[in-house]
Amino acid sequence: MATNPEAQPMYMDDCWYVAAWTHEIEPGQLLSRTICGRRVLFWRDRAGRLFAMDDRCCHRGAPLSCGRHEGDTVRCMYHGFLYDGSGRCVEIPGHDRVPPKAQVRTYAVVEQHRWVWLWIGDAAEAEPALIPDTHWLTDPEWACTPPGYMHYEVNCQLVHDNLLDFSHLSYVHPNTLGGSEEYAQLRSKVDRLDNGLRITRWFMDRPPPPFVAALLEAKGMSGNVDRWNNYNFLLPGLLIMDSGFAPAGSGAERGDRRAAIEFRHCQAVTPETADSCHYFFCQPRNFDRDKPEVSERLYRSVVAAFEEDRAIITAQARCLREDADFVPMPCGLDLALVQFRALIDQRLAAQRERHARRDARP
Amino acid sequence: MATNPEAQPMYMDDCWYVAAWTHEIEPGQLLSRTICGRRVLFWRDRAGRLFAMDDRCCHRGAPLSCGRHEGDTVRCMYHGFLYDGSGRCVEIPGHDRVPPKAQVRTYAVVEQHRWVWLWIGDAAEAEPALIPDTHWLTDPEWACTPPGYMHYEVNCQLVHDNLLDFSHLSYVHPNTLGGSEEYAQLRSKVDRLDNGLRITRWFMDRPPPPFVAALLEAKGMSGNVDRWNNYNFLLPGLLIMDSGFAPAGSGAERGDRRAAIEFRHCQAVTPETADSCHYFFCQPRNFDRDKPEVSERLYRSVVAAFEEDRAIITAQARCLREDADFVPMPCGLDLALVQFRALIDQRLAAQRERHARRDARP
Amino acid sequence: MATNPEAQPMYMDDCWYVAAWTHEIEPGQLLSRTICGRRVLFWRDRAGRLFAMDDRCCHRGAPLSCGRHEGDTVRCMYHGFLYDGSGRCVEIPGHDRVPPKAQVRTYAVVEQHRWVWLWIGDAAEAEPALIPDTHWLTDPEWACTPPGYMHYEVNCQLVHDNLLDFSHLSYVHPNTLGGSEEYAQLRSKVDRLDNGLRITRWFMDRPPPPFVAALLEAKGMSGNVDRWNNYNFLLPGLLIMDSGFAPAGSGAERGDRRAAIEFRHCQAVTPETADSCHYFFCQPRNFDRDKPEVSERLYRSVVAAFEEDRAIITAQARCLREDADFVPMPCGLDLALVQFRALIDQRLAAQRERHARRDARP
Repeated sequence: MATNPEAQPMYMDDCWYVAAWTHEIEPGQLLSRTICGRRVLFWRDRAGRLFAMDDRCCHRGAPLSCGRHEGDTVRCMYHGFLYDGSGRCVEIPGHDRVPPKAQVRTYAVVEQHRWVWLWIGDAAEAEPALIPDTHWLTDPEWACTPPGYMHYEVNCQLVHDNLLDFSHLSYVHPNTLGGSEEYAQLRSKVDRLDNGLRITRWFMDRPPPPFVAALLEAKGMSGNVDRWNNYNFLLPGLLIMDSGFAPAGSGAERGDRRAAIEFRHCQAVTPETADSCHYFFCQPRNFDRDKPEVSERLYRSVVAAFEEDRAIITAQARCLREDADFVPMPCGLDLALVQFRALIDQRLAAQRERHARRDARP
Repeated sequence: MATNPEAQPMYMDDCWYVAAWTHEIEPGQLLSRTICGRRVLFWRDRAGRLFAMDDRCCHRGAPLSCGRHEGDTVRCMYHGFLYDGSGRCVEIPGHDRVPPKAQVRTYAVVEQHRWVWLWIGDAAEAEPALIPDTHWLTDPEWACTPPGYMHYEVNCQLVHDNLLDFSHLSYVHPNTLGGSEEYAQLRSKVDRLDNGLRITRWFMDRPPPPFVAALLEAKGMSGNVDRWNNYNFLLPGLLIMDSGFAPAGSGAERGDRRAAIEFRHCQAVTPETADSCHYFFCQPRNFDRDKPEVSERLYRSVVAAFEEDRAIITAQARCLREDADFVPMPCGLDLALVQFRALIDQRLAAQRERHARRDARP
Repeated sequence: MATNPEAQPMYMDDCWYVAAWTHEIEPGQLLSRTICGRRVLFWRDRAGRLFAMDDRCCHRGAPLSCGRHEGDTVRCMYHGFLYDGSGRCVEIPGHDRVPPKAQVRTYAVVEQHRWVWLWIGDAAEAEPALIPDTHWLTDPEWACTPPGYMHYEVNCQLVHDNLLDFSHLSYVHPNTLGGSEEYAQLRSKVDRLDNGLRITRWFMDRPPPPFVAALLEAKGMSGNVDRWNNYNFLLPGLLIMDSGFAPAGSGAERGDRRAAIEFRHCQAVTPETADSCHYFFCQPRNFDRDKPEVSERLYRSVVAAFEEDRAIITAQARCLREDADFVPMPCGLDLALVQFRALIDQRLAAQRERHARRDARP
């Protein structure tokens, strides 16, 4: 397990990263966002098709996002190079002919369920089937909180660590998501998946945490509840969680969710640079679907809680930056995060070998 | 051609840099300005003579610019060391005798036509005859815009690049200096000079650009114009330009300027550090000389345009800093800037040899 | 003598550093302060006993100062690790047993005369008898100015240098502590102590400096005074000074202080990082002890003067950072500071040897 994750400069290039909410890229707009150390330009042609390409003119390096959207093309507004969605430069002012190497790199990009997914490796190898299912973000059976975004000034692994160990709820979020300190004493079940981990937490017959207590009361549920947080934490950094609350003993753990209220949290951590990351989140629910005020209230609770996370994680990152020799002391709480870091290390090792083979080809 | 000019740490030391406007150094004042990585103190004695010396007391390194002007001397206000214009310390409080090595380095400095020219190499080798002619800045036959200054947070070469390729006018300055995109399609004529390049651009029989359209109209010139931008771009980074506008077909290209309005732009780019530079500019003209409102209007137009340059160049520098591996793709537009960079490289190579010979002397 | 002290990364570990005023650590409070590059947590148990330990949970590096004070323990509020004053972790949520290596490093810490003294080396070797006497800070025979603190963004040696050469008073503080330039011409007597230097300055029969002129007048002392600044400057960076003013010729230099007003300045410079330091100060006096308005007036004078010091020292540090090759030119004024730097160098050399022997032990 690496001590200070911020020293890690390599990014997995055979997976999809959440790069934006689809509504962030409006027709005619040029969105620049740095993903895995690459400054990427997102834009749409007149038909609405989405493109992602290096946000840097091949000529002298000016950002295309400072340029001009011209129908199905984007013009660099330094010296007028004009690009189409394939990244090819199709016009250089004063030149009859555009040399073939006048182009910028493009990326495979897919819009699915309101998220924009970016593949930073070879676009020819991009496989849309690898995008995890987050259909709750658009499914009419589920009601969503407003689309969430937060910026972190820390390496993404510290956010992964946070999401992989829910024992922190008792201490970081006592008045929001958390509740009693008993919750921290519960050990999660951790199972290995091909591309991540499956984490299972059932917390039976206890008072509900603050953020849902009022919601449950409004639904006539008083008294103790059974609570679950069962989630996949997938490469490169996606949390897809089935969570909920049911009257204690009503059988939710055995599959009877008739009396339950349920969520399908979708959260994505995407590296920006080695020292910063993007955090996209939404909390679809299967109750009070026609009540926007419930969406708003939940959103405010979640954001308040995520601000609590950001405060402690940012403080932690500051400590780690100050002492390059610090070695963390893993304990039982860290089972999932140790496994997830090992999984990333394996994938990056395989990637290095794959690149070495590719670079060795005649 | 170097990819990222900001990695360049060496400065030509056998040429003159514009360091200030003369009026910036008033009698009794201490001006500190960093030129080519050296923090330099500029000041005058009681007779008005100008001196330039290291802005750092030889004693313990405190800046002399935080000190006190005392007639023909400057006193460090940390422990009282007193310096004259030759850089010698002439008094140390509590010491009967000042050791000969108590001195700071001085620089050759010349005031000419309102600019202060600094020679950062050996002062004994400074040759005032090498200072280019900018007499229009004081010639009563020409009227000047107010003295211009702008600070750039980029390596000076990116500003050189900008000034060496006027095709950017169509894209960076469409509503100020630029005009039609046709102007960008015009190829400049580039000739080599001993100490720089000669660039010639004639743009015939076209509507005038916004910044002069009103001026021309006031003079009864309507309709198309012939426009020229003919300039020397000289080491270390000086643009001295003959530009102007004449009624289309009135013969300006053949030398008949009787119906023309003319400018003699003087612009100097001076390195501050590897990541920043100074930009001094003025636009003398031979028309409406008695109208200060024309000076003001031109000045505002020029500054607005130069802010447009600074925005795109600063964005470009940010892109280049993020990707050390970026290799620009030169095209026909870059003829002048490629030649100018080559010229600097030759001069720096010669300088290295000269220094090596000097350092090898017994 | 090192040229740029900011390159120095090592701290003496066999001495006491002033880390705080005692009142800064109130019961129930967690104070984090970086001392010699170590982020240290200061807190008290219910009995008021003071503890100092690494402000970084051994688990994953979160700062304990973001945690919760719980009686005689401190809880990390990321995942709930609980520590006692010995630095041992006494509880990990969800774990029956705490592994012995779950602990943070503690430091020897002593409260004496309102200052908190920290020993950054091996706590077993901490020797409270080495703490210098500053009893004037609590002695009822002396009245104190309010407790002073200032933060410097420079290496501590530049502040030592300042305090070791009072000739700067004439130039940095002409209108506060200083007075005439004659004062700068006075050479200090410098004697070597085991753990520092003894500096003696008597300035006879001169007008008083601005900051005490009004005080003296109120006491009916008009005319010239004899002034003295006699101080120990002790490792790691402590100034303990006997200073005062007496009517000229009243015999203060020979020991007769009946007509004098006296101060016992206590000032401590403590490294924060290689580029910053803490500055604690107080000016006990033996006159007007019952007049808080005199305390306030003196405090304002001293702070105004120390701001003058900070301005010039910070400007000096900026100059030194810009030129790593600068070599200062020592003169007679620097006798004390050259000796003090040599003393530190000797102590650090001995420390390196001591560590090497320790690390070589089987």
